[in-house]
Amino acid sequence: MNIIVEQPLLPEEVWTRIHALQLAMRQAGVSAFLVTQNVNLYYFTGSMQAGYALVPAEGDPIFYVRRSVDRARKEAAVRVEPMPSLRTFRTVLEHDYPVHFAQQAARIATEMDVLPAHQFMRLAEMIQSDGDSTLIDGSAIVRRIRMIKSAWEIGRIEAAANVVAEAMTASLGMLREGVSELELMARIEYELRIRGHVGIMRTRSYNMEIMTGMLGSGEAAAEPSAFDGPAGGRGLGPGAPQSVSRKLIQRNEPILIDVGCCVDGYVIDQTRTAVIGSLPDELAAAYAHSEAIIHEVEQLMLPGTACETIYAASLELAADAGLSSSFMGFGADQVKFLGHGIGLEVDEWPVLARGFTDLLAPGMVLAVEPKFTFPGRGVVGIENTYLITDEGPRQLTRSPEGLIILP
Amino acid sequence: MNIIVEQPLLPEEVWTRIHALQLAMRQAGVSAFLVTQNVNLYYFTGSMQAGYALVPAEGDPIFYVRRSVDRARKEAAVRVEPMPSLRTFRTVLEHDYPVHFAQQAARIATEMDVLPAHQFMRLAEMIQSDGDSTLIDGSAIVRRIRMIKSAWEIGRIEAAANVVAEAMTASLGMLREGVSELELMARIEYELRIRGHVGIMRTRSYNMEIMTGMLGSGEAAAEPSAFDGPAGGRGLGPGAPQSVSRKLIQRNEPILIDVGCCVDGYVIDQTRTAVIGSLPDELAAAYAHSEAIIHEVEQLMLPGTACETIYAASLELAADAGLSSSFMGFGADQVKFLGHGIGLEVDEWPVLARGFTDLLAPGMVLAVEPKFTFPGRGVVGIENTYLITDEGPRQLTRSPEGLIILP
Repeated sequence: MNIIVEQPLLPEEVWTRIHALQLAMRQAGVSAFLVTQNVNLYYFTGSMQAGYALVPAEGDPIFYVRRSVDRARKEAAVRVEPMPSLRTFRTVLEHDYPVHFAQQAARIATEMDVLPAHQFMRLAEMIQSDGDSTLIDGSAIVRRIRMIKSAWEIGRIEAAANVVAEAMTASLGMLREGVSELELMARIEYELRIRGHVGIMRTRSYNMEIMTGMLGSGEAAAEPSAFDGPAGGRGLGPGAPQSVSRKLIQRNEPILIDVGCCVDGYVIDQTRTAVIGSLPDELAAAYAHSEAIIHEVEQLMLPGTACETIYAASLELAADAGLSSSFMGFGADQVKFLGHGIGLEVDEWPVLARGFTDLLAPGMVLAVEPKFTFPGRGVVGIENTYLITDEGPRQLTRSPEGLIILP
Repeated sequence: MNIIVEQPLLPEEVWTRIHALQLAMRQAGVSAFLVTQNVNLYYFTGSMQAGYALVPAEGDPIFYVRRSVDRARKEAAVRVEPMPSLRTFRTVLEHDYPVHFAQQAARIATEMDVLPAHQFMRLAEMIQSDGDSTLIDGSAIVRRIRMIKSAWEIGRIEAAANVVAEAMTASLGMLREGVSELELMARIEYELRIRGHVGIMRTRSYNMEIMTGMLGSGEAAAEPSAFDGPAGGRGLGPGAPQSVSRKLIQRNEPILIDVGCCVDGYVIDQTRTAVIGSLPDELAAAYAHSEAIIHEVEQLMLPGTACETIYAASLELAADAGLSSSFMGFGADQVKFLGHGIGLEVDEWPVLARGFTDLLAPGMVLAVEPKFTFPGRGVVGIENTYLITDEGPRQLTRSPEGLIILP
């Protein structure tokens, strides 16, 4: 068994990220970035301790830490200072960053896509107390930088991919008729966890939750859900209305196994379809189409191709197969994307969707998940995670493709 | 094995909650509440589907659902309508709630403690487009209502407590020298999950994360962390800097097992301390003090007692034991509370802390966790979850008290 060993994040890597942020800030006319979210703090300092990091457009950042200062000093690649009270924070900033705070109308950016409104208001009041500065949204700047993964980040995603592949192999032996979705998922999660899965899958969108993913059989997989994905699953009741249910797995129905894990903060996403016995012809054909679509899409995943072009191509391929109405969900609950960026969070940029005009570029990592939903019958499909390279997409997910057929 | 069976939430219960919210809104001069958070949506509608619920101060709520409308119609106790575009949402609200939106300067409340700033701004622009209405913070109103649990809610917390107690019993057999924290936690999580744990522990605070809790041995448990609790744990690296590590468990060191689970959306929190062999005298004495403190605190947990009174009493008890510097963390990383409300989220109100002048009342559920941290050596302590009743606290956690001693 491959037990993941933690790979230290090197200071040089953190500084490369900081310099990318500083360049983007200067291009956007932003004086400084006030980083507040734990994931962004980890990305830009190397430490996820509690506090705020101030990254100036020029000069060195300071991570003001509430707790633990000791741990932040061990982990962070940047200067760490104890967090002052919010009342005195502006004075401290004016002292530490006189060019950015004391002399001019500063445009300070922060993560308005995740920072709660109340906390934003308090920070805005503090920043704007000079009557001249403004606290603005810098979410897009950060999301755009985080799209491009470094070799170290790709290594962590690959480590997570290996864990998922091993956990699948270790768990599938218990898949038989009459086992519940919950029991099978519990086993997969156990196999992920002992290999180093950190136990959560981080998401960025408000109200979006992911356990280890979704495992659904037959009609339970095909139930519509709030989850912004092609198959959310029945779940364990209205208080947990997605992912596994207590349904017992039957013969001859599709079993969708959409499972990820998180290693050193980095997540992977992979889906395979299994069946005990055989799939009904229509579903078997749809599964074959999902593989055909993902292989066609691979041909398009080259640097310079627009994300929305790939999404449009997948819609055409589904239409050619006569499966438009089942593609990426059913009816009113179809989702409007084919794939999504992935890294520290499951729902990163870019998105393979209409209106996403960004061009693919080397270093982007995307999960691509063509799936077909048949209400009352099940969901079939495949999902791989790819790294974009100059030579085309490199698949990071490791489980063999093809329908998993159990006797 | 006790496999949890989902307990349906009855419409009457949802309506009782709505009426409590409406009463509080009228007292606060609020016209309507725009509920946006998944947990609050579940609480006030019975469904956690994606959308916004409008609860007027008088009249019937409508849950405007983006997806899945079908599922929301099955789950919700209130009227469900498809969510219009944000551009037309105000017009729809003026039509559906003419008294609240069309005729007067409305004060509309929402959850500014969790709603991201960007989304809040868009909603505020929509609400305030009449030049007269305002979108204000209603977080405290909702948190206050949710403090008081119904019989049904208490039943779900008890179900979760049973799952934790069973999972502890089923897992402790594998606790021996040389087993890693991660391996033991993986087993506990497996035992929780197959009994119906939904796989996540919801938190309300920004950046606060909980896996299934924290399991830490010896010096790893005593490392300071960002986590706002007395013992966060070493974790699996800077990208997951809390909870279990890969450290192997040794003889004669304290093993802190702070584990919860979530059933039908409701969480429980419990801590027990274990040792293979025996604890050093000082740590054994501190553990005995943690039990003595929790039993003293039980005597104070009566309706009408102020939360901060209980916290102050616990500080005195720790001081009497000569253990002030180790109580609830060590040094700069001590936390400033003894216990916290718990229900749909781990970090609910009330908090047993200075400045929390609320009086305990029947129906409140609190996790109380006196713990002592010894840097380089470990953490000892106990945590029980209690229901406040007129007759005093009723313990909901089920595992036996006392240090768990393994040969």
